[in-house]
Amino acid sequence: MIKVGIVGGTGYTGVELLRLLAQHPNVTIAAITSRGEADIYVADMFPSLRGAISLKFCKPEAAELESCNVVFFATPNGIAMTQAARLLAAGVRIIDLAADFRIRDVAVWEKWYGMNHQAPEILSKAVYGLPEVNRSAIRTARVVANPGCFPTATQLGLLPLVETGCVDLDSLIADTKSGVSGAGRKAETHILFSEAADNFKAYGVAGHRHLPEIRQGLTEAAKRNVELTFVPHLTPMIRGIHATLYARITREEDFQQLFENRYADEPFVDVMPPNSHPETRSVRAANLCRIAVHRPQGGRTLVVLAVIDNLVKGAAGQAIQNMNIMFNLEECSGLTQLPVSP
Amino acid sequence: MIKVGIVGGTGYTGVELLRLLAQHPNVTIAAITSRGEADIYVADMFPSLRGAISLKFCKPEAAELESCNVVFFATPNGIAMTQAARLLAAGVRIIDLAADFRIRDVAVWEKWYGMNHQAPEILSKAVYGLPEVNRSAIRTARVVANPGCFPTATQLGLLPLVETGCVDLDSLIADTKSGVSGAGRKAETHILFSEAADNFKAYGVAGHRHLPEIRQGLTEAAKRNVELTFVPHLTPMIRGIHATLYARITREEDFQQLFENRYADEPFVDVMPPNSHPETRSVRAANLCRIAVHRPQGGRTLVVLAVIDNLVKGAAGQAIQNMNIMFNLEECSGLTQLPVSP
Amino acid sequence: MIKVGIVGGTGYTGVELLRLLAQHPNVTIAAITSRGEADIYVADMFPSLRGAISLKFCKPEAAELESCNVVFFATPNGIAMTQAARLLAAGVRIIDLAADFRIRDVAVWEKWYGMNHQAPEILSKAVYGLPEVNRSAIRTARVVANPGCFPTATQLGLLPLVETGCVDLDSLIADTKSGVSGAGRKAETHILFSEAADNFKAYGVAGHRHLPEIRQGLTEAAKRNVELTFVPHLTPMIRGIHATLYARITREEDFQQLFENRYADEPFVDVMPPNSHPETRSVRAANLCRIAVHRPQGGRTLVVLAVIDNLVKGAAGQAIQNMNIMFNLEECSGLTQLPVSP
Amino acid sequence: MIKVGIVGGTGYTGVELLRLLAQHPNVTIAAITSRGEADIYVADMFPSLRGAISLKFCKPEAAELESCNVVFFATPNGIAMTQAARLLAAGVRIIDLAADFRIRDVAVWEKWYGMNHQAPEILSKAVYGLPEVNRSAIRTARVVANPGCFPTATQLGLLPLVETGCVDLDSLIADTKSGVSGAGRKAETHILFSEAADNFKAYGVAGHRHLPEIRQGLTEAAKRNVELTFVPHLTPMIRGIHATLYARITREEDFQQLFENRYADEPFVDVMPPNSHPETRSVRAANLCRIAVHRPQGGRTLVVLAVIDNLVKGAAGQAIQNMNIMFNLEECSGLTQLPVSP
Repeated sequence: MIKVGIVGGTGYTGVELLRLLAQHPNVTIAAITSRGEADIYVADMFPSLRGAISLKFCKPEAAELESCNVVFFATPNGIAMTQAARLLAAGVRIIDLAADFRIRDVAVWEKWYGMNHQAPEILSKAVYGLPEVNRSAIRTARVVANPGCFPTATQLGLLPLVETGCVDLDSLIADTKSGVSGAGRKAETHILFSEAADNFKAYGVAGHRHLPEIRQGLTEAAKRNVELTFVPHLTPMIRGIHATLYARITREEDFQQLFENRYADEPFVDVMPPNSHPETRSVRAANLCRIAVHRPQGGRTLVVLAVIDNLVKGAAGQAIQNMNIMFNLEECSGLTQLPVSP
Repeated sequence: MIKVGIVGGTGYTGVELLRLLAQHPNVTIAAITSRGEADIYVADMFPSLRGAISLKFCKPEAAELESCNVVFFATPNGIAMTQAARLLAAGVRIIDLAADFRIRDVAVWEKWYGMNHQAPEILSKAVYGLPEVNRSAIRTARVVANPGCFPTATQLGLLPLVETGCVDLDSLIADTKSGVSGAGRKAETHILFSEAADNFKAYGVAGHRHLPEIRQGLTEAAKRNVELTFVPHLTPMIRGIHATLYARITREEDFQQLFENRYADEPFVDVMPPNSHPETRSVRAANLCRIAVHRPQGGRTLVVLAVIDNLVKGAAGQAIQNMNIMFNLEECSGLTQLPVSP
Repeated sequence: MIKVGIVGGTGYTGVELLRLLAQHPNVTIAAITSRGEADIYVADMFPSLRGAISLKFCKPEAAELESCNVVFFATPNGIAMTQAARLLAAGVRIIDLAADFRIRDVAVWEKWYGMNHQAPEILSKAVYGLPEVNRSAIRTARVVANPGCFPTATQLGLLPLVETGCVDLDSLIADTKSGVSGAGRKAETHILFSEAADNFKAYGVAGHRHLPEIRQGLTEAAKRNVELTFVPHLTPMIRGIHATLYARITREEDFQQLFENRYADEPFVDVMPPNSHPETRSVRAANLCRIAVHRPQGGRTLVVLAVIDNLVKGAAGQAIQNMNIMFNLEECSGLTQLPVSP
Repeated sequence: MIKVGIVGGTGYTGVELLRLLAQHPNVTIAAITSRGEADIYVADMFPSLRGAISLKFCKPEAAELESCNVVFFATPNGIAMTQAARLLAAGVRIIDLAADFRIRDVAVWEKWYGMNHQAPEILSKAVYGLPEVNRSAIRTARVVANPGCFPTATQLGLLPLVETGCVDLDSLIADTKSGVSGAGRKAETHILFSEAADNFKAYGVAGHRHLPEIRQGLTEAAKRNVELTFVPHLTPMIRGIHATLYARITREEDFQQLFENRYADEPFVDVMPPNSHPETRSVRAANLCRIAVHRPQGGRTLVVLAVIDNLVKGAAGQAIQNMNIMFNLEECSGLTQLPVSP
């Protein structure tokens, strides 16, 4: 059994990790920390876990995280980078669901995240945890940077095109829509029910932190610079990312076949038949990305639709997928739940 | 492996049965019928099942249901009663998720359901499938009438009181709220998104078909006539039943203890601590009923709150729980998914 | 023109007051205060008001509220009672949308609101602003305590029964459901979209501040003590109150006629035909209460359904109705907007 | 007073027309027809109109529409074209909220709408009712083709760019999101609450009927052929269109100023300040289009955000705006309601 610790388990990625890990056949949850909620039963805060998780939240210093095989950070940005060194020294492997280790270029990271990076040497060795790209590096990684939700959907939807260079890499567009849980479980006005329900809006058009992450991933895949316009929107639903991706065709291909081939062996990517419109609910609560490829009116613009559940393939599920890879478990272990629909 | 057939799998209870049965370790799904959708892949209609269910819908006559161990009817009311005899003759056991066998009194059934009953002799032998009441009879039943969603929540919330006779049995009130999926997957105007969203209303106050079912169950539990005012409401959420139950106390008891004792051995009923307010999402997608008991201001009126997922403990999950009991499987087999929250 | 000031306009009752007052033909909005948002344009905070409200929020001390004819307090509880004396001394009339002046008994108020009352002498002269009960007193009131949202719907639904004494006044039940905007525009976790959407729950079953307010109103109407069980629920919609009210009949009446007669001259109360089920959206954004009266199966329990928009007839609209009465305007002036549905 | 008739008033554009016309100071509603609902009170079908509309639906032949000054068709596509000639002969002016007269090229219309056009000679004289483009032609039009909801938002968002030719007209992209009421009040499965809630999807990517309409409008504005990729999405909200529009800059301009100048005199178009993100709720229930212009990272791609309420500026409100223009009323008459938010 893999002995697991969770730092900062009071947000949505935390409770989703708990839901999935509690059903994982190869895992023991040793500790879950929260300074603010220490000594409170997890199930008192998250009644959906009553009967499944008997742990209390504990203070980080009482958690004995050093004895774990792996520690998940489900914390705000800026926490994992201050605690990683001590755990690594104790031989613990780390999966950070926040952004501390996602961007290789320290200067870029510091610009977008507005703080100094505390552990650039760890950052330089961290592996970006998109299994569909980095599976073998993840296997031996000491630190995995779990991708953001928008970057997961956007990269999976664009990778086959970018890797093969059949579209214009200077004018990609990602029009992305997120459920409100993507904004986290923070007491902020703009994500109140009465603000976000029956409403739709774009945000961060001038610049969103996921943009440099996506650009980095696509640039590595393309082996040249990639330019992307990235517009996120807030959608009145709890879970789900829908990425609508636009690319100008520069070389003819059988695009449907290209996608099917690229993901043929991927257990968690489903390329749908031609003319499909994947719905976010078709992956709700499951570790899946569904993709459809369109070429409207046979024109020059390709439209790719990609959906994930932001809390699963976009966060906790992908983190567990990474853990499975790191510890040589079946990659699907603990991740076989079917989507919940309706 | 239990060989299972499903009749009428295109509604919400049908797709939910498929979701749960596909993850059940002791089950093979042999056939799923739909006259209207014959020869269509189930996963084309329900993309959430892509990769999990490879069956096509088939015409009933092609389904070879007689070779199944058990057949679930996820059909409209009035279908199971016409097909049950043939299946029973072939040795098949039946679980009807519709209402054909729920009410013992044929005249009452015919009044509320507006048709003649086609199989009163089968009705007379059917077992009402509320495991918390009828577990031993279910074990040997040939036909199980799976309870309605409101009746499940309402009876589980009132049974401890009614069985012990500590409240006035002439003035019970069940103010119940249902998610819209409780109305089924029918193309009807009043359950359109633009009608049901951001809106709340009562319906069927003059009389709802679940009233005689609840009254029958409570009357049997009380061993005397029980009178109930039952007011259902339509709530702008997909899944979930919340029953708010009011009873006038006639004999002092430790009511919290009464409920905890009654359900101490029940795997799917969770009596919450005093002063709890169960949320419907705390049971979303899981086969669970959570209950809280209140006595506001120490007065004479007891308030019981009970929540279920109408598609799981209120339909497909309870049907599988019944199947597990009928076939001597672990009662929790295939029903261990944790609630999905948020 | 009536010169109006608003104290504390950054919550939902504040923005709703602004929406309605901006369309009121007899009103000039002189100032709107907010310490936190001073010098910000109202329309920058509430873009729905762009082009209609050109004011900035200002600090209270800069607002010259003493020069207004009437000041609305759309503040948290406990503010109006500290500022009322000064305004009254300047001849300004006051409409408090919070709870400071709603409960006559200071001890009861202090128990439920958890603070000392700062102006009991003003409280003793304040008029409870339910026009359907207190119209003539409102006309000359210096201070009007605008009723709470649950109390408005519950009292309007029960008054005809309580005033005539035809039901048991010791066992009334109010099962009430509120849209999330009823909880205000506060950054609190439990009213986040991802917490409140697709979910339903009761809250405050042990005791809610609207209980003593309702009990006071019904007791005055009955001219004897009234006992009420009051259970509020949080509903995944933005606006709307649905009160489902249960009363045991003690004297036969033509209950439909009783309600129609009681409200025959009320411009904002609509008694619907027998067997109606009022929907909350049928009053959305309008100053209306719709009521239906049911007697299921001709039994002893009467069921009354009452709906309002919590921000209009349950707050800002009723406040303007009170203002119209106080200043001898047409009672419907500025309140003729039709409900928005769907 | 303008005497108005409405043909087909049982859909969402019909009830919205009624809400707005009932508050219009210069209008008398003479008749509203519905074959299916004849002799039913409008307010029985739409309780939100109780007290405001006392009419019954009547059969078309009993409606005496010939005596009206103007008739609105709120019918499915294909109805107005069969009834227009008779009304025109009687001197009645026509505003069609359906698509019968939107596309000048009969062959294109027939291809996209899948039927033969019954009145090409009327089509050739109809005026496309986008006042911001065709105000003077609308003034004298006998038949106005009221634009579709997506075309209204998309054209208003792109017109300043297309008219001035400062962007690449071969690669425009319109990623549009609609509330569910845009699909009408039809009993269809895919717009059921349990299908559309908590879900997001694209649809019609291969081709949507609004594409040729938008292309026609932009081509006329550009005075050359315009190519557009148009991807509509279904959003879990009742009302609202959000168009996210992408254009490649070909000539430098002060784009903010360009938009402000273009719409400086338009009463129903609001160009927001730089860096704004218009929300759909900021125009809910009001006849408004709000627009924001972005140039992310100063790059080559311009992003325009445009929001409308699909039932108001996208349908009934714009129809009344057209009527006001046709009859020389104040253009804002009856359209001054403020948006309802939250």
